[in-house]
Order: sequence, then structure tokens, then C-alpha cells
Amino acid sequence: MNDGDEYFMKQALKEALKALDSDEVPIGAIVVMNEKIIARGYNQVETLNDSTAHAEIIALTAAFNFLGSKYLPEATLYVTIEPCTMCFGALYWSKIGKVVFGASDPKHGGLSLHASSKNLLHPKTEIVKDILAEECALLMKDFFRKRR
Amino acid sequence: MNDGDEYFMKQALKEALKALDSDEVPIGAIVVMNEKIIARGYNQVETLNDSTAHAEIIALTAAFNFLGSKYLPEATLYVTIEPCTMCFGALYWSKIGKVVFGASDPKHGGLSLHASSKNLLHPKTEIVKDILAEECALLMKDFFRKRR
Repeated sequence: MNDGDEYFMKQALKEALKALDSDEVPIGAIVVMNEKIIARGYNQVETLNDSTAHAEIIALTAAFNFLGSKYLPEATLYVTIEPCTMCFGALYWSKIGKVVFGASDPKHGGLSLHASSKNLLHPKTEIVKDILAEECALLMKDFFRKRR
Repeated sequence: MNDGDEYFMKQALKEALKALDSDEVPIGAIVVMNEKIIARGYNQVETLNDSTAHAEIIALTAAFNFLGSKYLPEATLYVTIEPCTMCFGALYWSKIGKVVFGASDPKHGGLSLHASSKNLLHPKTEIVKDILAEECALLMKDFFRKRR
């Protein structure tokens, strides 16, 4: 972890707040390259009526479009919650350089579910976790508590 | 397996041929509900410069849009090759009723890679494999042989 990771996770948290404003499960993501944010995304499953419209997928698609490239080896994705199996699969195909997430997700997180699998991550992808984990998890807890 | 599965797999193969025509890895998918095709997709990774633009993802998004629903419990996805981890993740979120695939993919197939994982499939999703597997695999083999 470094200060840069905290800074950028705060930006991902801002995206998560946009999801919250739309009554979506509050998860946000950004893609960073050369210390600059090149793409953003927040969970839009309800808004788009698409159960796969996760923050990471939206941010990745935006990054591919921005760069005109289908691979992101020099980029880092920051996301507030551990990516699910689908999103780890998408990150695998993107060959992204680094994935930084906030809070772990024991129920749906790809690493949590497939801990024994060597095939979930691209071999060149570095993983950093527990960046601002409490803030990231708190947003989720508040959201689900209010819905009950 | 039943005749309907073969019929619909042939329609997925037609989608795979569209991918081949665009110099894409030839994989095609369709989504069927009440014996009718409601969505189609073929691999467009190169065309869209998006490494996640797999046939299944495109067909699922089209199905969500067509139905105005983020879940597909009454639908079946037919795809020529075993879905990858990402696509199985997307199928999980869609709560799709049934997935039928042609040829297995030992290198990238979600079931092949995560055979020991109970969490890859939605508990309500039925899997059928080996439908027109030879035809589906042959398209792939021809494609990769010609590229070498």
C-alpha cells in the first residue's frame, strides 16, 4: 500500500457514492494509468436492468474505449469491493497490470470463492487488498441495513 | 440432449460463422425462451477492441435489453464453446435456467478450470454439454491452424 493507493481508492469511493445516489449497491471503480484516471464506473445493475453491469465491467469497457486497446497491462483498476468471479474473469482477459480493492467479499468475491484456483488471475496481474477497507465496507453495510 | 438442442446449437454455429467472417475467434451464442431465439451474439473482441466482448456477454446483454429484465430464469443460452470464467460469472448473475454448450475448452473453460468449485454456477442453472461438439471444435481448430 502507498498514499497513491489511498488517494485513488477515495476516487473509487466517489464512484460508489454515485451508485448509492441511484439506489444501486454502492460499488465504484476507476482505472488509472500513469497516475491519471482514464476511466470510471459504478454499479448500474438496476438502472440498466443488466445483472452484469458491475462497476468494474463499466470501468474496463470505458478504459478499452479510451485507449483504443483491448489490453491494459500498464493500468491499475481500483474498486471498493473485491471483484466477483465474472469481474475477475474480465480482468484476466484485460491483462491489467494491477488490481487494488477495498473490502473483501466472502460471499461473491472471486478470490474468496476460488482461493485454491491458480487460474483466476492473469499471471502478470498484481493484487493489493484492504485499502480503505472499512470505508468501503461501511457504505455496503449502511445500504443493506436501510433496505431491510 | 434432444433435437431442440441440436437445432438451436446450429443457430449458435451460424453466429460463430459471423465471427469467422470478421476474423474473430469463431464462437457464437444465442438465448432461447419458449422455443424462440430472443438474442444473438458472436465474439467481437477484435472488432470492438474489447477483450471481454465474448459471444455470451453480447447475447446476454441483448437478452436483458429485449426482455427489460436483469434475470433470465426461463431462458437457455446456447454457445458453441464452453464459457470462460468471466462468462460463467455473467451467467451466474443472470440466473439463467439452462446453459448448453458444444465443445469443452480445457484451457479457458470455467467448468474445466474450476471443476472443484461449487460457486461457479447458480444453483438453479442446468448444464448440458457436448451438443454438436465436433462441429463446434472444428471451426476453432480450422481458425487457429490457418493463423499459424
